[in-house]
Amino acid sequence: MTLVEQMNGILNPRSVAVIGASNNPEKMGYMCVQSMVESGFPGGVYPVNPNLTELFNLKVYPTLSAVPGEVDLAIITIPAQQTLPVIEECVAKGIKGAVMITSGFRELGTDVGMELQKQLRETANRGSMKIIGPNCLGMINPRARVNATFRPEYALTKIGGVSLAAQSGGMITAIILALDAQDIGISKAFSMGNRCNLDFDEIVAYLGEDEDTKVIALYIEGVDEPRRLLSVASEVTKRKPIIVLKGGRDQQLNPATLSHTGALAGKYEFYKAAFSQAGILVVESITELADVAGALALQPSAAGDRVAIFSIQAGPSIVMGDACHRLGLKLAQFAPATRQTLRRLGSPLVRLDNPVDIAGTGNDRAACREMMRVVLEDDGVDAISVITVADSPLNDAIADVAHHRKPITVCLFTPLGSAPLDKFAGIQVPAYPTPEQAVNGLAGLVRYGAIRRSKG
Amino acid sequence: MTLVEQMNGILNPRSVAVIGASNNPEKMGYMCVQSMVESGFPGGVYPVNPNLTELFNLKVYPTLSAVPGEVDLAIITIPAQQTLPVIEECVAKGIKGAVMITSGFRELGTDVGMELQKQLRETANRGSMKIIGPNCLGMINPRARVNATFRPEYALTKIGGVSLAAQSGGMITAIILALDAQDIGISKAFSMGNRCNLDFDEIVAYLGEDEDTKVIALYIEGVDEPRRLLSVASEVTKRKPIIVLKGGRDQQLNPATLSHTGALAGKYEFYKAAFSQAGILVVESITELADVAGALALQPSAAGDRVAIFSIQAGPSIVMGDACHRLGLKLAQFAPATRQTLRRLGSPLVRLDNPVDIAGTGNDRAACREMMRVVLEDDGVDAISVITVADSPLNDAIADVAHHRKPITVCLFTPLGSAPLDKFAGIQVPAYPTPEQAVNGLAGLVRYGAIRRSKG
Repeated sequence: MTLVEQMNGILNPRSVAVIGASNNPEKMGYMCVQSMVESGFPGGVYPVNPNLTELFNLKVYPTLSAVPGEVDLAIITIPAQQTLPVIEECVAKGIKGAVMITSGFRELGTDVGMELQKQLRETANRGSMKIIGPNCLGMINPRARVNATFRPEYALTKIGGVSLAAQSGGMITAIILALDAQDIGISKAFSMGNRCNLDFDEIVAYLGEDEDTKVIALYIEGVDEPRRLLSVASEVTKRKPIIVLKGGRDQQLNPATLSHTGALAGKYEFYKAAFSQAGILVVESITELADVAGALALQPSAAGDRVAIFSIQAGPSIVMGDACHRLGLKLAQFAPATRQTLRRLGSPLVRLDNPVDIAGTGNDRAACREMMRVVLEDDGVDAISVITVADSPLNDAIADVAHHRKPITVCLFTPLGSAPLDKFAGIQVPAYPTPEQAVNGLAGLVRYGAIRRSKG
Repeated sequence: MTLVEQMNGILNPRSVAVIGASNNPEKMGYMCVQSMVESGFPGGVYPVNPNLTELFNLKVYPTLSAVPGEVDLAIITIPAQQTLPVIEECVAKGIKGAVMITSGFRELGTDVGMELQKQLRETANRGSMKIIGPNCLGMINPRARVNATFRPEYALTKIGGVSLAAQSGGMITAIILALDAQDIGISKAFSMGNRCNLDFDEIVAYLGEDEDTKVIALYIEGVDEPRRLLSVASEVTKRKPIIVLKGGRDQQLNPATLSHTGALAGKYEFYKAAFSQAGILVVESITELADVAGALALQPSAAGDRVAIFSIQAGPSIVMGDACHRLGLKLAQFAPATRQTLRRLGSPLVRLDNPVDIAGTGNDRAACREMMRVVLEDDGVDAISVITVADSPLNDAIADVAHHRKPITVCLFTPLGSAPLDKFAGIQVPAYPTPEQAVNGLAGLVRYGAIRRSKG
């Protein structure tokens, strides 16, 4: 069985056992069963606890061995000291992988914790089983309705093209929320925890092969074998983008990362240079990660760094131009023929050079469409960003040109009291609440375009 | 009449005339009447148009002179060429100020436009009348239910402590939306347009005296008399913070700012240095402006730059530490007594140095409160930021310590599918969706604290 086959089995299980199921709503073992039940998982869910008979209308089994038929995935919430025999039982049952929520291993920084994790790894490796965790939030695959976490609300995770792996359950939450705010969905998400025998390099290799994953986003504090990850990433970034947010850059903070998931954070500048060398996009904040991931999930990468700005409002277009400048993007110079067409179609009262002030024509869908089309066809333009408001005919014009080979991002101002507009998600155009964020997205498309070209 | 008295009269008018009122819903003259009616303005609203008799159930007057009684504010939407006699009529009527939405003046860059604006200014000055604009979105004062703009949805603007003045109506919109997303309200907002005879220096002087204004936020592309603004700002920043977002930093963009509101943007570094010298906080994006303004509107400034982090999740606290590092804030070193108390109250399983991992104690309100209190009382700590989730007892503990003399900001993760929590607005604690934004807010409180100390 290849890694991809094994991971596909874990992520699309026929059935799932929850070892350490509990009837106490404050316990992980309760929440994990609830998560699988409420996610609408179509396969079998088997709670395991010798002291219970029923939970969420499901039969509870005394042991894993007592569960009938095959089980592909185990979710484990029992105390650390009891995990070793359970992993042996998992191996005997032929389980492909376990999500181990339990903590109390390497992250303790004690010899006992280190030793226990080592034994766990050896046992799992002997049985060709993969352990996600221990000391983690779990894993989700919303397409398969798998919510193997102790957070039932992940049943509501939108399905999309961004896959996540994070050395922190809290960061999985933070990134999913930031993507959700922009209507961007998830393919798979992994809380990596202590990375017992499943590390970032294998996750990246798997996600590189996963067709539903358009973009890989990682939150990394430190890795034990950076070369393995960099080598895999160098290959994968030829096909799809990888974004990294590196946590723990302040030397003073490093003890925090050690006690967190057992990895001492390395020097930021070293990581940043090595990641960039491998073709990974390094971002500086959760918001930038979500902005870039959303753009790369929906739009083609750019063939160059020359940006055209269209705006229904002049001030925000100036702020957008400033953001381009700050992120190293150039404002495109239009060809004379482009300028002529803009003058013919646009309002005589406003500026029709880049940024293009579309204010006078914003109510004329056909004119807006033609103005954007002529700019998109201009050889001096690599990408465009458009500033619009929720009720404008300009939005229909954006839909008309949305499937151009050159990328588009949008800054959408939604009036006070209005519901957010879902029009742009339908046409695969990322829409952001500020001009700066729309440029973050565009910069990601420009940066990844340069990476692909550099890799031939 | 002092400037403050005059501005108070304009912002809290007894009655308002809309000159150029229209029954065509696509015209500014229609939207402006709608804005005043829907805002629930308690005083008189007098539409003026010789060809209409009724609009929104209001009597329409043929001329301003025909309006009975006193009028404090005129909203003008008639074409530019007709404005001069109307301003004379306003002066004759004793109107204190006009919001002139009309465009077609200095921003055209033509001699005719320049000359018309000059005559407007001379006429208004002779009559001791102030003109907001021309070529602007208008002005709002939500406390007085005045929405003197062509955007009726500003009736929904939340009342708060941030006052805005922007050289762009679109940026007024962008900033109000960014503040609203964080539940931060507005005191006054001015779209400055071409600044006929009311410029940033006078607005800042007025807002410096306005008790409802806790923070002044400006979007500036360029000013004609920077020294006047800097001189006023130097005084006002002794009492309340001023934040500036400077638009048009890219030299290539400057033509855009000229055609926008008639100001050629100056060199960014010059502006930035001069603003900082005057005690103004310069920010780099709309989001940062809203983050900083929200914190300054609700929390005291900090006595130093040593930050303590509390978090219910380890990963995001590491990202928060990184954000502190990037913004030049220090992670506080706790005193031995503080460490002892944290060890006594906190979970033995987690890290209790800065950042403090509160995970093990997050369900114990009293323990959380005592842990935060002992840290707030530590002489080595100037400010704290707390990462929490919507349903945690930690939030009650934050409320318990919220009125400490040291500032607090919060990063609040709201689970998917949950409504945003309004608990923090009630206790005057700014709550942000990401750790980085919570640090933006804290950094604003630290920077303004340093400014106040430098001014004695």
